[in-house]
Amino acid sequence: MLQSKLFGKTLKNPPKDEVSVNAKLLAQAGFIDKLSAGIYSYLPLGLKVLNKIKQITREEMDAIGGQEILMPTLQPAEPWKTTGRWDDPGKEVMFQFEGRSGKDFGLGWTHEEIVTPLAKKFISSYKDLPVYVYQIQDKFRNEPRAKSGLLRGIEFSMKDLYSFHRDEKDLEKYYQKALEAYQKVFKRCGLDALVVEASGGSFSKYSHEFQVLTPNGEDTIFYCEKCRYAQNKEIADVSAISGSVLGGGGKCPKCGGKIMAGKTIEVGNIFQLKTKYSAPFKLEYADEKGQPQPVVMGCYGIGPSRVMGAIAEIYHDKNGIIWPQSVAPFQIHLISLQEDKKAGKIYDELKGQGIEVLFDDRDDSAGAKFADADLIGIPYRVVVSKKTGDGVEVKKRGENKVEVMKINKLIKTISI
Amino acid sequence: MLQSKLFGKTLKNPPKDEVSVNAKLLAQAGFIDKLSAGIYSYLPLGLKVLNKIKQITREEMDAIGGQEILMPTLQPAEPWKTTGRWDDPGKEVMFQFEGRSGKDFGLGWTHEEIVTPLAKKFISSYKDLPVYVYQIQDKFRNEPRAKSGLLRGIEFSMKDLYSFHRDEKDLEKYYQKALEAYQKVFKRCGLDALVVEASGGSFSKYSHEFQVLTPNGEDTIFYCEKCRYAQNKEIADVSAISGSVLGGGGKCPKCGGKIMAGKTIEVGNIFQLKTKYSAPFKLEYADEKGQPQPVVMGCYGIGPSRVMGAIAEIYHDKNGIIWPQSVAPFQIHLISLQEDKKAGKIYDELKGQGIEVLFDDRDDSAGAKFADADLIGIPYRVVVSKKTGDGVEVKKRGENKVEVMKINKLIKTISI
Repeated sequence: MLQSKLFGKTLKNPPKDEVSVNAKLLAQAGFIDKLSAGIYSYLPLGLKVLNKIKQITREEMDAIGGQEILMPTLQPAEPWKTTGRWDDPGKEVMFQFEGRSGKDFGLGWTHEEIVTPLAKKFISSYKDLPVYVYQIQDKFRNEPRAKSGLLRGIEFSMKDLYSFHRDEKDLEKYYQKALEAYQKVFKRCGLDALVVEASGGSFSKYSHEFQVLTPNGEDTIFYCEKCRYAQNKEIADVSAISGSVLGGGGKCPKCGGKIMAGKTIEVGNIFQLKTKYSAPFKLEYADEKGQPQPVVMGCYGIGPSRVMGAIAEIYHDKNGIIWPQSVAPFQIHLISLQEDKKAGKIYDELKGQGIEVLFDDRDDSAGAKFADADLIGIPYRVVVSKKTGDGVEVKKRGENKVEVMKINKLIKTISI
Repeated sequence: MLQSKLFGKTLKNPPKDEVSVNAKLLAQAGFIDKLSAGIYSYLPLGLKVLNKIKQITREEMDAIGGQEILMPTLQPAEPWKTTGRWDDPGKEVMFQFEGRSGKDFGLGWTHEEIVTPLAKKFISSYKDLPVYVYQIQDKFRNEPRAKSGLLRGIEFSMKDLYSFHRDEKDLEKYYQKALEAYQKVFKRCGLDALVVEASGGSFSKYSHEFQVLTPNGEDTIFYCEKCRYAQNKEIADVSAISGSVLGGGGKCPKCGGKIMAGKTIEVGNIFQLKTKYSAPFKLEYADEKGQPQPVVMGCYGIGPSRVMGAIAEIYHDKNGIIWPQSVAPFQIHLISLQEDKKAGKIYDELKGQGIEVLFDDRDDSAGAKFADADLIGIPYRVVVSKKTGDGVEVKKRGENKVEVMKINKLIKTISI
């Protein structure tokens, strides 16, 4: 991509109306643009990052047998009335309105009310179980205030997987598999996510949240610095962990290590729904004896836009973002310093190798180009100038070392 | 994909509440499921088709310099009030409602009101032009009645590209390029789309629609059977074309060929917006002399879900759908007739070659499996039975010939 043609520009300063670190950085670097509080457009750079996070998530869901589907955003009231959630939490969470057809609609903020009746159409026998479906789709929450950028959006992207099982034992087995798949997703996105025990509500023993430590996090967790056992504040307050920390010097109930308190961002959660939704929709299957049995369910969520925000919160310095290579919009930021012809050839060569390159071909100063490269945060900055001869100057974003190397070595370096 | 595990099943009969051919076929074959009138879930088979259509569209938009972005669905009232469309057409088209924040929102049914102010942030000089951005996203129309399946949805997918130019001459040039790209998209999707002249409204000479002939079409066009020159009914009624046809025996004004009337489905349209939206938002650029000039715009729409519906309307017989290979959910429907082990080996071999295979490994009769294969409409039905030896029986969907061939030949056959 030629930077001179790129839609979206870096801004001199972060937008004045943003308070969150992620929104300031992502807007200033030209990744997103705010339409309204909690509602953002993704510019070409931002959409590339978001799509990479979605694709990593998709691959890991496919790997545990997930089948991708796409359910509607616009949802009639009826199934929500069946579970009671049309009124509670109702408009506190859901945008609700009447259509010209006279029908009441709401915008999906989760999809249990849609997926359960859908599954009921295709599940009748034990032979139809287990089955796992997921979608990657925009969801909506009727937030009165939204000031956390991509961390708490009014419109936000979500991957939600739903699993259907014949019994709790099978659910438990898959839940563990999903937990491991989630760890892979976050690791591939460059996030060190803690698996945190959380409350399971009234119908389940527990759920798990995936939390990343960062000073600007909105959540609080307690975790063992040795074995990484962790609980969220809600759970820890009623167990020994937080009390002992708050009182000074708690010990991990698993390994005896030191318990720490930390601010975090929740990037995913998994939940054993059991029969919470299959019961109201009478989702049942016939077992080997032909007896009707309730289907047991689990649900598993990751917010790709929130993951993107979390990465920006964690990976940056005073000059801009530092993208992990796996989710970077491009692998190489190629900068020409009055050597457009030579740089153009290198651009073609790298593209020919299937490498994603943003080529700064603009008529601008070295200082301005370097500042933009730092702000945008592509992993490898590659400079072509008179002094580099037939090589290029390579600098990894976030590191200080500058190395002159030939193109072949550059290709090897970025493939590692 | 193992059919025994596939989420979604074929139905014995089409749903009773569907009247359109596309919805009947797609629902019966397990591609879509109706949540509410005009609102559908895409099951795994259906999402594969939809994504192939989206990807073909994306590739052709990228080829004419389009940069993919993603704008919000949820849109504040203000920019719509700027153009007057908040009130007219207002709720006739747009779902409108108030959020807890006290803000009025609407659901996007088009994005001129969003993209024009967005472009204004990045366009200041003639050096920033031309620029082309597009998105592929779900849109919403507040239809009181929706009974045409995927052809006229309340929630539907849309690719909308917007182009920004320094003058009408540059717009005209790009408009022609986009027209050709559109022809490529439809051709690759297996659709023979006519380029139809349509009214340009009060601000433009004309626009173009892309229409495919089919008996169940909702539109009417007049076209020359010789040179394919075409006008929609609205335009033709005020020109000589339809009058002469309706009066009997019209002649093409371009080549003298015979003018025919036909029912059609509109699968795309392109429009010279000129300054209709840049004027109210004061989207201007500074020319070489530093003088402010209005930016000239074009917009270009394709509905991937509507394309999917149109394909089903056109490509089917009494037994089911006949997908063009380019958009088929799988290339091969592999059917085992009591030869699961041999078929399983072939399944692995084909998958190893990167071929998309749906493997009917279910414990069912040959008749039931063949009926499902016809209904689902995957291009190549490949049967493994005792009598095929080390070969397979290959039948192309929609043709009668059955040929026994070795796997190597099968791979060559489907790659043509």
